[in-house]
Amino acid sequence: MREFTTMGMRYVNNRFSILDQTLLPYEKKWLACDCVESLVSMIQRLAIRGAPAIGISSCILLALLAERGHNREQLQRSAVILKAVRPTAVNIRNNIDRLLLHLERSDYPQSVVNEAEAIFEEDVELCQKMAQLGAGLIQQGENILTHCNTGGLATAGIGTAMGVIRTANEQGKINRVYVDETRPLLQGGRLTAWECNELGICHAIICDSAAATLMKAGKIHRILVGSDRIAANGDFANKIGTYSLAVLAHYHQVPLYVVAPLTTVDQYCRDGKAIPIEEREAIEVRGAVGNIGYCTWAPENSPVYNPAFDVTPADLVTGWILDSGVFTRNDVVGENWWLAE
Amino acid sequence: MREFTTMGMRYVNNRFSILDQTLLPYEKKWLACDCVESLVSMIQRLAIRGAPAIGISSCILLALLAERGHNREQLQRSAVILKAVRPTAVNIRNNIDRLLLHLERSDYPQSVVNEAEAIFEEDVELCQKMAQLGAGLIQQGENILTHCNTGGLATAGIGTAMGVIRTANEQGKINRVYVDETRPLLQGGRLTAWECNELGICHAIICDSAAATLMKAGKIHRILVGSDRIAANGDFANKIGTYSLAVLAHYHQVPLYVVAPLTTVDQYCRDGKAIPIEEREAIEVRGAVGNIGYCTWAPENSPVYNPAFDVTPADLVTGWILDSGVFTRNDVVGENWWLAE
Repeated sequence: MREFTTMGMRYVNNRFSILDQTLLPYEKKWLACDCVESLVSMIQRLAIRGAPAIGISSCILLALLAERGHNREQLQRSAVILKAVRPTAVNIRNNIDRLLLHLERSDYPQSVVNEAEAIFEEDVELCQKMAQLGAGLIQQGENILTHCNTGGLATAGIGTAMGVIRTANEQGKINRVYVDETRPLLQGGRLTAWECNELGICHAIICDSAAATLMKAGKIHRILVGSDRIAANGDFANKIGTYSLAVLAHYHQVPLYVVAPLTTVDQYCRDGKAIPIEEREAIEVRGAVGNIGYCTWAPENSPVYNPAFDVTPADLVTGWILDSGVFTRNDVVGENWWLAE
Repeated sequence: MREFTTMGMRYVNNRFSILDQTLLPYEKKWLACDCVESLVSMIQRLAIRGAPAIGISSCILLALLAERGHNREQLQRSAVILKAVRPTAVNIRNNIDRLLLHLERSDYPQSVVNEAEAIFEEDVELCQKMAQLGAGLIQQGENILTHCNTGGLATAGIGTAMGVIRTANEQGKINRVYVDETRPLLQGGRLTAWECNELGICHAIICDSAAATLMKAGKIHRILVGSDRIAANGDFANKIGTYSLAVLAHYHQVPLYVVAPLTTVDQYCRDGKAIPIEEREAIEVRGAVGNIGYCTWAPENSPVYNPAFDVTPADLVTGWILDSGVFTRNDVVGENWWLAE
């Protein structure tokens, strides 16, 4: 396996390590990732997150295990475990299925290693493609609203929605990025804000519930979000709060774009109703992780409803920015629209 | 001054005390309130909050100071200071102005004490009136969504929106209350959830951004919120996130009611644009107060936009539940509509 370093993953000196995103922005701690159990645990507790990043890290790990002597059967078993960790994101399934196509080849394990490297390299490139396509839509002086984290921490490259923002910012077109803090796990307030600082992007963190009042005041020109799964009809799942933004954007006539790689499209998923929504633990909503550890504020005996994702119907989306092109609602009605251009 | 005890204030053994709401739900600590400076500090750091409660506590304190020998001039100066503490809430100004009408009477300070007692008693009664009127609208088996805290901690009585919920629950009509956690200060997740537990109301805490997905699923039958100021045209200010809920309710055809005492109506305020919106410190959004003290998670150098309130235009409101009656959009166009019935 070739060495690499991204914002949140690295393979150096025969060690695959993952930056523990739960400790950001206060601490940069790299965790060794040398077995399926450790990666599953990191994905579950969101030490690594972002639909592309969890797909790619899974492939990297499987390839390393193959390289280190795991046979095809062992690798199959590991693949099954990894594919089940996060039900909503489809990239992990798509990426691993693609890797497994190379399992039966005579040059195993090299075939699997090559494919993992290709998946990694492709993610870097398709982030660039989405960023170029998306940045082309942005006008001089725009304020962009984004949700959750879709940047270098969530992908192997410069990110999806955040990659567009980063590129448009390099082109001098961004006035300010409003960063939804993204309760309950605060990927916006912790990670996107951290990336904005690292990249020198003018930004302001807001509570998720303040987005509407900014839209009403005309201060949001465009909303860019990522996706964990796009159904064949264009409906898409993303971090809880995205559907809320989409309704608000519709009411205030603010364009909303979803930015995601082709691997996010699930052609076997007819519409949003077929996307499984992961419900997570009550403890996430009863408090938060911060600089002094886990802090709770809600009564311990209060029940919680904590869906990790929601589904935005296609008719609330202005455009789909994939690496294969920018698609409008008119495009999305066609057969295999996501492959067009 | 007669003795009294509410959920969040008490006057017992010549001591006026306020329950420190920043420590709930983990600790019940009563703070002595014996001077204007201490009350101002408590209001600013939200040890006491809720538009009715800050108005009433201000009147109680002024009356006690009068009783303890402060002359009219001193009381006037204290009144000016208290009226300026929270610019959005109008009750504090309305209540204090009403108290000051009794300043020049020959039976000062007794006149002021009597008026403070009357304001207190009236709040208890008008909470009951709103609760009866509001509960009459609720159908068997409803799920109600509420935002922030509008219960016994926010008023002298059983509350505004929460008073309606409590009464409808006693009538056996409530299936479940969905409690918006209400970032940044978590008055829902901390205080409303605590009140629901105290009162045995079936509830679930949600992140503010999850309300939309519940509405889409048909799980919210009605939204009840309080208000810090209602303009003459029916526009109203309330905790940040209320406007967002109102747009979402409109889109999903969920009825939204504002529940507030008449003292919340500002007849001198023509419409929502004239309501001043308090912006609060960045630190509130960069973290939260919990069981282990103040916990931060956002980068220290990230700017924050933190409006404490937003304004909901009248055309997104289904009804106004005041102590003087339930008003619809048709009623609200009339002169002094809030006095009708």
